[in-house]
Amino acid sequence: MTISEFQKLIESIYLERDRARGRDATFVWFVEEVGELAKALGRPRADGGRNLREEFADVLAWLSTLASIAGVDLEAAASEKYREGCPKCRSTPCAC
Amino acid sequence: MTISEFQKLIESIYLERDRARGRDATFVWFVEEVGELAKALGRPRADGGRNLREEFADVLAWLSTLASIAGVDLEAAASEKYREGCPKCRSTPCAC
Repeated sequence: MTISEFQKLIESIYLERDRARGRDATFVWFVEEVGELAKALGRPRADGGRNLREEFADVLAWLSTLASIAGVDLEAAASEKYREGCPKCRSTPCAC
Repeated sequence: MTISEFQKLIESIYLERDRARGRDATFVWFVEEVGELAKALGRPRADGGRNLREEFADVLAWLSTLASIAGVDLEAAASEKYREGCPKCRSTPCAC
């Protein structure tokens, strides 16, 4: 799945509601998910890692919806910055 | 670019260093980038939105490297949770 396809998938599920909530309130929800990821990272994986995978998925979903609200194409932004290697030294691996 | 391709790109640039730094220290860097995204979201886009696009790219890059350190395939996690619509109500758009 491309980054763009995922962003569009999340738009189709949530964008109308997220846009109505507003950018700043949606950012608060995003940060809440970042907190849940922190919790999942620090815990034993008694469930085979399912909760941890879900928290990564949630942070990516909220980042995508934030980008949509802000009018940012996440795949274009990611590709633009990183496709040539480290944006600072232009090397892979980074040699900064 | 698929989510997996982006995760592998970031691995090729940064994973060795990020893994050596460790999961928790890398999480701190990730959160620093979340803070920079917050700042960029709240500012006027005098540069045509370039800084904002870069901050979205950075948060995605640090989320990817965290997933790699934790052994999580970000695309599989995202697809598993969201491909059928809202994970709670199974509807698109979400009807929760």
